[in-house]
Amino acid sequence: MSAAATTVPATPGNAGLASDYRRIRQRTLDLAAPLSAEDAMVQSMPAASPAKWHLAHTTWFFERFVLREAGEAAMHPDWDRLFNSYYHGLGGFHPRQQRGLLSRPSLQQVLDYRAAVDERIGEALDRGALEAEACQRLVLGLHHEQQHQELLLTDAKHALWSNPLQPAYDPGLACGPTPAAGQGWHAFGEALATVGAAPWPGEDEAFAYDNESPPHRVFLAPYRLARRPVSNAEYRDFIRDGGYRCPQLWLSDGWDRVQAEEWSRPLYWAPGLEAEFTLAGTRALDPHAPVVHLSAYEADAFARWAGARLPTEFEWEHAARELPLDGNFADQGRLHPGGPVPREGGLERMFGDAWEWTSSSYAAYPGFRTLPGAAGEYNGKFMSGQLVLRGGSCATPRRHVRASYRNFFPPWTRWQFGGLRLAADPA
Amino acid sequence: MSAAATTVPATPGNAGLASDYRRIRQRTLDLAAPLSAEDAMVQSMPAASPAKWHLAHTTWFFERFVLREAGEAAMHPDWDRLFNSYYHGLGGFHPRQQRGLLSRPSLQQVLDYRAAVDERIGEALDRGALEAEACQRLVLGLHHEQQHQELLLTDAKHALWSNPLQPAYDPGLACGPTPAAGQGWHAFGEALATVGAAPWPGEDEAFAYDNESPPHRVFLAPYRLARRPVSNAEYRDFIRDGGYRCPQLWLSDGWDRVQAEEWSRPLYWAPGLEAEFTLAGTRALDPHAPVVHLSAYEADAFARWAGARLPTEFEWEHAARELPLDGNFADQGRLHPGGPVPREGGLERMFGDAWEWTSSSYAAYPGFRTLPGAAGEYNGKFMSGQLVLRGGSCATPRRHVRASYRNFFPPWTRWQFGGLRLAADPA
Amino acid sequence: MSAAATTVPATPGNAGLASDYRRIRQRTLDLAAPLSAEDAMVQSMPAASPAKWHLAHTTWFFERFVLREAGEAAMHPDWDRLFNSYYHGLGGFHPRQQRGLLSRPSLQQVLDYRAAVDERIGEALDRGALEAEACQRLVLGLHHEQQHQELLLTDAKHALWSNPLQPAYDPGLACGPTPAAGQGWHAFGEALATVGAAPWPGEDEAFAYDNESPPHRVFLAPYRLARRPVSNAEYRDFIRDGGYRCPQLWLSDGWDRVQAEEWSRPLYWAPGLEAEFTLAGTRALDPHAPVVHLSAYEADAFARWAGARLPTEFEWEHAARELPLDGNFADQGRLHPGGPVPREGGLERMFGDAWEWTSSSYAAYPGFRTLPGAAGEYNGKFMSGQLVLRGGSCATPRRHVRASYRNFFPPWTRWQFGGLRLAADPA
Amino acid sequence: MSAAATTVPATPGNAGLASDYRRIRQRTLDLAAPLSAEDAMVQSMPAASPAKWHLAHTTWFFERFVLREAGEAAMHPDWDRLFNSYYHGLGGFHPRQQRGLLSRPSLQQVLDYRAAVDERIGEALDRGALEAEACQRLVLGLHHEQQHQELLLTDAKHALWSNPLQPAYDPGLACGPTPAAGQGWHAFGEALATVGAAPWPGEDEAFAYDNESPPHRVFLAPYRLARRPVSNAEYRDFIRDGGYRCPQLWLSDGWDRVQAEEWSRPLYWAPGLEAEFTLAGTRALDPHAPVVHLSAYEADAFARWAGARLPTEFEWEHAARELPLDGNFADQGRLHPGGPVPREGGLERMFGDAWEWTSSSYAAYPGFRTLPGAAGEYNGKFMSGQLVLRGGSCATPRRHVRASYRNFFPPWTRWQFGGLRLAADPA
Repeated sequence: MSAAATTVPATPGNAGLASDYRRIRQRTLDLAAPLSAEDAMVQSMPAASPAKWHLAHTTWFFERFVLREAGEAAMHPDWDRLFNSYYHGLGGFHPRQQRGLLSRPSLQQVLDYRAAVDERIGEALDRGALEAEACQRLVLGLHHEQQHQELLLTDAKHALWSNPLQPAYDPGLACGPTPAAGQGWHAFGEALATVGAAPWPGEDEAFAYDNESPPHRVFLAPYRLARRPVSNAEYRDFIRDGGYRCPQLWLSDGWDRVQAEEWSRPLYWAPGLEAEFTLAGTRALDPHAPVVHLSAYEADAFARWAGARLPTEFEWEHAARELPLDGNFADQGRLHPGGPVPREGGLERMFGDAWEWTSSSYAAYPGFRTLPGAAGEYNGKFMSGQLVLRGGSCATPRRHVRASYRNFFPPWTRWQFGGLRLAADPA
Repeated sequence: MSAAATTVPATPGNAGLASDYRRIRQRTLDLAAPLSAEDAMVQSMPAASPAKWHLAHTTWFFERFVLREAGEAAMHPDWDRLFNSYYHGLGGFHPRQQRGLLSRPSLQQVLDYRAAVDERIGEALDRGALEAEACQRLVLGLHHEQQHQELLLTDAKHALWSNPLQPAYDPGLACGPTPAAGQGWHAFGEALATVGAAPWPGEDEAFAYDNESPPHRVFLAPYRLARRPVSNAEYRDFIRDGGYRCPQLWLSDGWDRVQAEEWSRPLYWAPGLEAEFTLAGTRALDPHAPVVHLSAYEADAFARWAGARLPTEFEWEHAARELPLDGNFADQGRLHPGGPVPREGGLERMFGDAWEWTSSSYAAYPGFRTLPGAAGEYNGKFMSGQLVLRGGSCATPRRHVRASYRNFFPPWTRWQFGGLRLAADPA
Repeated sequence: MSAAATTVPATPGNAGLASDYRRIRQRTLDLAAPLSAEDAMVQSMPAASPAKWHLAHTTWFFERFVLREAGEAAMHPDWDRLFNSYYHGLGGFHPRQQRGLLSRPSLQQVLDYRAAVDERIGEALDRGALEAEACQRLVLGLHHEQQHQELLLTDAKHALWSNPLQPAYDPGLACGPTPAAGQGWHAFGEALATVGAAPWPGEDEAFAYDNESPPHRVFLAPYRLARRPVSNAEYRDFIRDGGYRCPQLWLSDGWDRVQAEEWSRPLYWAPGLEAEFTLAGTRALDPHAPVVHLSAYEADAFARWAGARLPTEFEWEHAARELPLDGNFADQGRLHPGGPVPREGGLERMFGDAWEWTSSSYAAYPGFRTLPGAAGEYNGKFMSGQLVLRGGSCATPRRHVRASYRNFFPPWTRWQFGGLRLAADPA
Repeated sequence: MSAAATTVPATPGNAGLASDYRRIRQRTLDLAAPLSAEDAMVQSMPAASPAKWHLAHTTWFFERFVLREAGEAAMHPDWDRLFNSYYHGLGGFHPRQQRGLLSRPSLQQVLDYRAAVDERIGEALDRGALEAEACQRLVLGLHHEQQHQELLLTDAKHALWSNPLQPAYDPGLACGPTPAAGQGWHAFGEALATVGAAPWPGEDEAFAYDNESPPHRVFLAPYRLARRPVSNAEYRDFIRDGGYRCPQLWLSDGWDRVQAEEWSRPLYWAPGLEAEFTLAGTRALDPHAPVVHLSAYEADAFARWAGARLPTEFEWEHAARELPLDGNFADQGRLHPGGPVPREGGLERMFGDAWEWTSSSYAAYPGFRTLPGAAGEYNGKFMSGQLVLRGGSCATPRRHVRASYRNFFPPWTRWQFGGLRLAADPA
């Protein structure tokens, strides 16, 4: 993969942009294909959205930010309210927790809407009719689309699991075992490290979200990072050692949550700790695969039990900055952590497999500026009550992620592919 | 309509039973036909169920209480948990408020399940293979089916209304205007009235639910009943007179509800009081049609405002006992109150149009006995916190209702076709 | 006790009224005496009120309905909001669940307020300055006061029990054991019974609440009533037989409550079923004393387990109508059920000891009229969602209760002295 | 103020420690003196505690961590459960939100308990009987005591305000007006700043909480800090400009809170924005005094409206490091922000007046270690979901705070004296 290929160029009339657009849009359809119209309706918890909503919202994003900004009339004016997620600058929106009530428009109507928008945008791209600013919003829309591809998978996983029949998303997903891998520490010395990405859009064409910029220096004391993420077997040891019954291991908020929701294991694990629900259905627990579907509270408690801690997002980024973007991503089609180690030696599985919880609250970088217009609501307003996760997961498109990429979720959420890698102060 | 036609005979091998079975089962399919698989998934509030669930649950009722009691194996053992509504005697059940998450089984699978059960039962009926007790449970199942036909309609109405697009269930429903009808009182003298129905199954073949029996005497002081139900225009007067802003008109629980849920008009009325959402979509308010979608609290407050009161269920039944079962029922296909008065003179619209809230709590009759076995959970255990409604509505199958029929809902519920008829003490 | 003594006469200038006023008002102070100013602040649940609030509210009732109606100025205009319980006709009121926040006025200020109001009213009574209507409101106020005497005790009991130290209200309360008493049935034949009391105020001087009138006829089928209330030992048998684990014994709402609140025994019983918290502190369970602190759901489940049912309020009243008003009332100073049977033979303990849950919803009698003015909010607006209890308890002033007296509470409440007596259809 | 006076020495037998102990303990009693036993019972929200509980809990802290660790028997073994706040390592505890139910022990018993513990500790200090470790826990206890002095005031303020009578804590508190003060920026250059305090206990005697250590370097980009905190007048301009009605100014969580709790002004302001509730009762708003009783969401929205931002805790500390600890602290007895500027020129009012919200989440410093034993639960387990505030307030004891001091509260809390100082990137 060349460096050029990892970015979505923003040049008007650029053939690469048109093909990226078509490829990424098609990929969303492919990911939704195993779901019936009924499956695509389910909203199994307020924080998740139905697949149909993801399909419609991402399309609305292009229609609203690209076509309509360019002067086109609304295709379905009464859909604005339904598929606007949270942009106050663009009018009101349907309550998030009621997205599962939207039997209309039908999945077929949404697919038709996708096709109509894609046709107009494809045509505009082909004839170079989009101005630079529109192209930038289109590039933003493609990254937005990829983000929703992962959410479509994690939300569908939760929806299917919520059904007592626990049907598989795709029983045929590849699932080779994960080889055992020794654990160990990588030490990093004191550093005045530069983290973050150049603001986009800028002179450089590489895309990054506004929340990743500007680049800035942070002082890092010496630290250590574990060679690989924590495995299922290790996490099972924590459970068997009474981890969920010992309040001293937990943050106070975490312990409250353990009590209130009676947590005793990762979200999708079976009570006997021997199996877990995956997108391929229920399967035997793979002992050496990275553990996932942990809240930050669980990750933190495990780390304390292990005599270690979570890394900060800057410790993580500093360590990852020069690593190749190899990993078990959604492109591999496994859609579950584990399998052969992509690249042995050095830090393993930093990218892909599992989002790694960090101890860093999701906050603005010094000099942070939101994008202009309504798109400015994309990231900044969520900088409260969330923690940063790094590195991407088995459900993340490979081209979506990078060393500076900041994912963020509230610390109690478990339905994402969230795991952890231990960090520690110098020995 | 002959008396024979109003009852479902319970004689094994009876051709009438087989044809009733097929007709009633088909009717449910007809009522569900305007709903897509996605529409049939929606559960817009915990008290409502998706149409697909109604289709499956009613089928499971026959499979479970007729076929399996007769020794047949479960067709889908893992569906028991999904489609058992609340029978503790038959094992655990899926939480009621999560019925909307059931994308699987698909609507098509549920329809196949219906067909399979119907085929077996039809065949058994045709060859007279069902014993008397099985036939009785089958008759119970047909009344149960009809009850769910009404729920399917009222739940679908709420589901469609919950969608900001507010699509119609069927925009082509008949909707002629309701003629004005003068109001007036009918006076009844003191009576030691007999109310209730003979226990079923018994010597007499007429079906009645266990909660309607045994017949018993109640002493009634003289009372008056209004000639017709309260109309939309009259209810609008109440609103415009400040009815929703005057606590003295309300029961304490009712006023709390008005405040907490910011009630200011019947459930489906538009804010301007000039239109309402119907199964045919939003339509202009028909001033002379019976008002519906009231809670018992609203009905009670209106009555107090009007210087009257709600009737007791026995005052209602005593007055209705000799009236013909004519009315605007679901069979008419209007699915909304109003239209020509079925029978002028005397008490009008006692049956059909709108369920009439009474002041009577839903309680056991003296000597009440539940049905044997798990079917005993059908009615008795709900005798707490509910009020009785009488007379059937525009969504009730005509053959389902009778003078002794007791419908019941908590006093705050509004999504049923609940209206009211005034009562008063002697002038 | 002469008939005269059981009623509070309403004749202006009547010395009996003045002495009743002083005696009843003093009794409230006596009941509050064991509580410190801090104890008198506690509101341990929204449905309960602090003792200080009871002391103030009852005083406000006299000030507002007697003195101010007679033209006197408000003593503390800013207290109206605090001590108005729920009379919309008299202005706004402090939220009920926040009564425990009222450190001001202090208990001493409230006692001073009591003394000031009592002085003015006593003086007015002594010089015959109160008109007939004012005297009637004063009589109403005395019955209101007695009602709050019981609430003061039951609320204080809950408040003290909520403290992990579980202090006694008065460790010196008498507590002799309850002798064993055989159980049996009393049979009653079919009757067109007259129930209820004459409207008050009327020609007759006997006080009764508006909810007890008018007298009216009800038809009663033959029935049986148990000789005595259910005992602790019998209720313990129900528990040991798995009563709290068998859903089929429960009303649906009751079973939901059992699950949600993890009920496994009466409110104040110790987990081992061998002791209970009383106003005298924790004491060994007295096996033959009437069981108390049951919800209606528990009473109903017990009755079903015992193959019986709860009586209706009219069955109870018909049976009690001619019985003397003897019993273990608050006047005895035991403040707990049990002890020697007041009157052996016939129906025992119908009055006093334990309020007996009936199966009757609290509803208006035919021809019911509320009191005029704001006092009309006293009873009528609560006729929703509550069940009637009959007979008074060990915390009820003897002169407060009568055969027609209707107490009412929601079926899930347990902090009152609520027990049960079995009823049944003819053998 | 000498350096020696700002620290609590930990030398056994040290006369300074004994006198500090007596002075600080007495100060708590002085602060509680205006509250009656009833006032001292009130818990007006779950996050606040009754004054009596503060008095008891701080005493229990000394008894438990000093006397009993030294081998003394528990004075009141059954009080452990009541006055242990949250130390899992020391056994169970009474639910926090039920502290207002504790009428027993009485205030007098709690005061006796204070006296008994103080006598034993004073005696032990006088005769040098406490070992070094016990002295350290005693020093910790004194800082803990001072922290609760502020909470006692802020909790009492909320309790009194929750009473519709809104009584003053002390109507005689000094309240001279605040002079107008021009606003301006102070610029700070790029720095590799050292922040934090040396671990305590250590060689150096200066006390600091574990969460302030170890000292470490942070890289700071150039920034600006406002000369003084935001004033009431400025905040009123924000309100009048529609600040509470414009979602784009708010963090998403903040906007949800504005909607859900209908915020339209600081916690204690009158609807007309012309007066506010203070510990001296309701007073006219002082336009030039620092605004207080803001949530972090409101502080953040104001900053965004003003085209600025909140400082990070490290920007704040770097700027404060060399400033004298002058300010309007609780010692001044004003107990409300404002009055003459303590020290004009330079950064004004950095200490005292109002805690200043920062944008920094409360997190562990690199190399953070909790205190040994149960005291390790003091700070670390709360490092989740909270933001850091800096500088102390008008309710903070002067000797309690320092440049490295980190206070922390969830972003939605408003009952503390929380205000803000603007920060910005270089012009």
